[in-house]
Amino acid sequence: MNVLSYRPAPDEVSYTFGGRPAVRKVAPGTILEIYTEDCFGGRVRTLDDLPSAVCHLSSLNPVTGPFHVEGAQPGDTIALHFVSITPARDWAVSTTFPHFGALTRTQSTALLHPPLEERVWRYDIDLARGVAVFEARRSEFRMELPLDPMHGTVGVAPAAGEARMTITPDAHGGNMDTPELRAGTTIYLGVNVEGGLFAIGDGHARQGHGEVCGTAVESAMNTVVAVELIKNVATPWPRLENDHSLMSSGSARPLEDAYRISQHDLVTWSATLTGLDELDAYQLVSQAGVAPVGNVCDPNYTMVAAIPKTYLNSPQVYEGAHARLRALGQLYLGSA
Amino acid sequence: MNVLSYRPAPDEVSYTFGGRPAVRKVAPGTILEIYTEDCFGGRVRTLDDLPSAVCHLSSLNPVTGPFHVEGAQPGDTIALHFVSITPARDWAVSTTFPHFGALTRTQSTALLHPPLEERVWRYDIDLARGVAVFEARRSEFRMELPLDPMHGTVGVAPAAGEARMTITPDAHGGNMDTPELRAGTTIYLGVNVEGGLFAIGDGHARQGHGEVCGTAVESAMNTVVAVELIKNVATPWPRLENDHSLMSSGSARPLEDAYRISQHDLVTWSATLTGLDELDAYQLVSQAGVAPVGNVCDPNYTMVAAIPKTYLNSPQVYEGAHARLRALGQLYLGSA
Amino acid sequence: MNVLSYRPAPDEVSYTFGGRPAVRKVAPGTILEIYTEDCFGGRVRTLDDLPSAVCHLSSLNPVTGPFHVEGAQPGDTIALHFVSITPARDWAVSTTFPHFGALTRTQSTALLHPPLEERVWRYDIDLARGVAVFEARRSEFRMELPLDPMHGTVGVAPAAGEARMTITPDAHGGNMDTPELRAGTTIYLGVNVEGGLFAIGDGHARQGHGEVCGTAVESAMNTVVAVELIKNVATPWPRLENDHSLMSSGSARPLEDAYRISQHDLVTWSATLTGLDELDAYQLVSQAGVAPVGNVCDPNYTMVAAIPKTYLNSPQVYEGAHARLRALGQLYLGSA
Amino acid sequence: MNVLSYRPAPDEVSYTFGGRPAVRKVAPGTILEIYTEDCFGGRVRTLDDLPSAVCHLSSLNPVTGPFHVEGAQPGDTIALHFVSITPARDWAVSTTFPHFGALTRTQSTALLHPPLEERVWRYDIDLARGVAVFEARRSEFRMELPLDPMHGTVGVAPAAGEARMTITPDAHGGNMDTPELRAGTTIYLGVNVEGGLFAIGDGHARQGHGEVCGTAVESAMNTVVAVELIKNVATPWPRLENDHSLMSSGSARPLEDAYRISQHDLVTWSATLTGLDELDAYQLVSQAGVAPVGNVCDPNYTMVAAIPKTYLNSPQVYEGAHARLRALGQLYLGSA
Repeated sequence: MNVLSYRPAPDEVSYTFGGRPAVRKVAPGTILEIYTEDCFGGRVRTLDDLPSAVCHLSSLNPVTGPFHVEGAQPGDTIALHFVSITPARDWAVSTTFPHFGALTRTQSTALLHPPLEERVWRYDIDLARGVAVFEARRSEFRMELPLDPMHGTVGVAPAAGEARMTITPDAHGGNMDTPELRAGTTIYLGVNVEGGLFAIGDGHARQGHGEVCGTAVESAMNTVVAVELIKNVATPWPRLENDHSLMSSGSARPLEDAYRISQHDLVTWSATLTGLDELDAYQLVSQAGVAPVGNVCDPNYTMVAAIPKTYLNSPQVYEGAHARLRALGQLYLGSA
Repeated sequence: MNVLSYRPAPDEVSYTFGGRPAVRKVAPGTILEIYTEDCFGGRVRTLDDLPSAVCHLSSLNPVTGPFHVEGAQPGDTIALHFVSITPARDWAVSTTFPHFGALTRTQSTALLHPPLEERVWRYDIDLARGVAVFEARRSEFRMELPLDPMHGTVGVAPAAGEARMTITPDAHGGNMDTPELRAGTTIYLGVNVEGGLFAIGDGHARQGHGEVCGTAVESAMNTVVAVELIKNVATPWPRLENDHSLMSSGSARPLEDAYRISQHDLVTWSATLTGLDELDAYQLVSQAGVAPVGNVCDPNYTMVAAIPKTYLNSPQVYEGAHARLRALGQLYLGSA
Repeated sequence: MNVLSYRPAPDEVSYTFGGRPAVRKVAPGTILEIYTEDCFGGRVRTLDDLPSAVCHLSSLNPVTGPFHVEGAQPGDTIALHFVSITPARDWAVSTTFPHFGALTRTQSTALLHPPLEERVWRYDIDLARGVAVFEARRSEFRMELPLDPMHGTVGVAPAAGEARMTITPDAHGGNMDTPELRAGTTIYLGVNVEGGLFAIGDGHARQGHGEVCGTAVESAMNTVVAVELIKNVATPWPRLENDHSLMSSGSARPLEDAYRISQHDLVTWSATLTGLDELDAYQLVSQAGVAPVGNVCDPNYTMVAAIPKTYLNSPQVYEGAHARLRALGQLYLGSA
Repeated sequence: MNVLSYRPAPDEVSYTFGGRPAVRKVAPGTILEIYTEDCFGGRVRTLDDLPSAVCHLSSLNPVTGPFHVEGAQPGDTIALHFVSITPARDWAVSTTFPHFGALTRTQSTALLHPPLEERVWRYDIDLARGVAVFEARRSEFRMELPLDPMHGTVGVAPAAGEARMTITPDAHGGNMDTPELRAGTTIYLGVNVEGGLFAIGDGHARQGHGEVCGTAVESAMNTVVAVELIKNVATPWPRLENDHSLMSSGSARPLEDAYRISQHDLVTWSATLTGLDELDAYQLVSQAGVAPVGNVCDPNYTMVAAIPKTYLNSPQVYEGAHARLRALGQLYLGSA
């Protein structure tokens, strides 16, 4: 088994997709063990560490990478199977942040209100019991919430020579902030530049739908990813697969366009996989699909369109990459 | 047990919320047995019954009602618990419809494209086996989908003297098209006029998230509702409760505003129920909430914000109406 | 000349389009002299009259009417030519209003911010000099702005049995809040119910584009309108005509849909008027059209799409109603 | 007078803002004479040159530059005064383009319609008579439209290490497509990187509001710009000034956010310039401002908020750069 471990030095993380050389080359079939810092670069550690004081805007949402996948060319697809996502510390944080979040004015929903209060919450992370513990700041309320670790940010270098802040999701992936990106899931990313240059960050110990306050239970992560390359298969927007479902994603504003992109891709993809004509696939997805919200706070909003594979007669997609990578991940976990 | 049965004559159905007198008075505590026609008024029965040919625009989405709840005054809340929702025929239909749906130009997303093809799908409904059977129109594909009956349209007379087409969801309820409105769920609707004047329609044998093509598996329904009145408790937007969760809803365009309305209501409601301050409640809902999409095709889009009751320490809401109505429904079902 | 004068008693004004009987019948060809109250019902008179204190939500934006146009049937069009719009008092007011305006959270852009300060500005109106005088509230700043009187709200009873608050613009007209609706302009409104039932209100001594704070220089008005009926010509959305331009309007959210509706109507209307095919008309409007913003604060936003008539070879529209009504108005003014 | 002439070789143009070294250094106070290619790179020359056939997506919307302004540092502002913008050829073109434009489905408003027809229109440009001649493709219609030359695309390198396609407008400028960017206007752009790295392209012989079909009367240009640097004055979004008005811009989706950004900037800027408090400035702009639409077709939409300077008591902004550059331009034109 080809295993590569990589833990970035503090100055090795990236803040953009695109515009940076690879930190490592990865051969298809590799198991990649990485460490990712949280979205605050680990600088928010106590209730007094207000992000606007301890973080620079230019150093938010660091990602680990980019990784060059050997042989990847524009028009190919990189498959990343998340074997495991494990909170790296026994605490995590969440905060409000001036002009960021779904229930506050923002830079683009530019209103005359002063910003909401900036506040930090610190969660105890208990891996053994599988819980993150919420503690209110203005009363005695305390609640255990189940861990459901995921990565908010996964992407590749964008097309057309662009470099995008890691905080923005778009066709190249990025900060989609969907809880569907948990262990057991494979993400498919279309390659735009030689090597693809994927990167991963923004671990969440758990997250509600839409990440309404703008941040999740932000956690550094030890993450294991199985990597594969599917040659000559293009992927217009990030797609996901788990044992149960196929998923398309879309990231845009307004939110209905994120919905449209994801549903359009799922409808046309389903048509291709089943031989249904487009309107028949439109009908099937209309009755059988679900649409989990990703984020409603980032520069683009994200929605996912999912359908159980059985409703499509369980087609093989991407040359069976998910099953193969899942097996490789099991092998790795068994040997670990 | 106070049971009222009502099956509207064809000319007794309503096409607006507001602007019509009640068809019946209902005392709080009543079990109401009703029949609802499908959104096409039952006129689409075969693959050749194109809705634009057999339906008038003014006779789409009929609702059964309105019902006057005795004693209901502006500032009160009507609780409707759905005891059972049963497809009334062994078939149901779905269609595309010119300029309606999420992946087509519409009257307001007014583009220069000619309309998509208008097409009808007919589903066999097998109550015993609990399935609706999709059959493609342009290939041999056939798929059984589980029944999950719900009502797309439930509402009361709007405030401020308005009358609104039943197809539009807004603060008064209406065509929210959320699959959460299934049997076992209680909906809370704020009263705007004397008697409240609630009405119910648009049964779906099942529906995907967003009702992307514009119609669900449209079915006439035999539905049983337990009715209660909560005096002097106002409800700004429709709320839902089932055994597991509390839910707020919002209906607006763009879709992020539907999200904001529903999340804002859930955050502020949660704060009230738990004693959390608003920002603490914002944080809790951010990590613990889910946001099932209702519709992304109607004149307003609908989203639901839900949180498991346990995360709020299982508060009693609306004077325990849900538990009480649920028990009444069980009694009714046991005696039936 | 057939002249009808009408000044509503306080309890005769309307707060909805639809759902109310006519206050008067008007024969086509009539000159109608009316008085309209301001959007606050005249209750905000001093700097201390905060609208949330002195106004009821149910008594905002009164309109004068509705008027029944003799012979008007669904499928016809009512033409209203604004002969004159004259501020009726030597003062006018503007205010912020909680949760209303483009740079504040609203009921649907539901954020956690407390409302902006509610504040009243009082303008001196000097008809002789043609100015409204702005005086700042927190400093000595004073500025004369030219009068440009207009009506924010003009509409007919909606289709499909609806009744809509006067504050909402939609296909029936309503609170479009476009400065284009000034004297010298003819508005064309499609008839949905017998008699059409038009009404007029919400005079503005002047208004910026978008009515960004939510209110204009709100003024009671003495207004003269020349009325005509064009039989068997339908109008999908309100259209306007002045000596220079043809205009289409659209009201929707998000704002791009208001833009799309208005541009789509102007493109297809231009094609009909010139014999251009739709794409050629799309091209011509793309290079020759202007798009004045109406409102970006009401329940639907409004945009106007306008093109100089000369670019369409000065076609006659609506059987020459504008020229005829303009002449009638001149005759009236000359005889007055 | 310091005059720099620059005509890019075909391989010297840029397709991104950011991510490219400067082509020239420019000292503040310089008159810059440049040639800009049209948005098709000059490849659409006849009615048969469909852009999707003759253009690569990666070679659309070339800009001339970037230029390094000597001494420019983050936190400064670059002032570019457009002295003259002259169509460089006696023809120009406009086209529809698959999935681009306001009245068509797009990549993000992802619908199931096939694309609209791709069609080219060729305009004769008559500089002497000041007209562009529209000729319909499917009928004999011909119309002279007045020239009103402008640049659709002007910007600097973005912040945070980003590189953005020239087709996207955002806080760094870019493809704003506002007709306000004509000769006689000064644009102020906030500097994000050393040297600022401004670039200019996408000349339009004229353009309607919103560029509804997606392209204007696209023309290569000979353009003269006077350049200045204002040290230690930041500019959050591009601002414009002409002899008559001050203007703010915003670029975002949905369109109301572009409106909000531009109005918010104009309100807060006006408050600073006049000493008005924010709410008083909000009121003044609400009654005195205009809001010309830029584009409603690009990846972000653009709106401009403008106010006559006299309504602000004609304040000096940016150290009087506009007047100074205007005088410099006059001097240049007089000496030419």
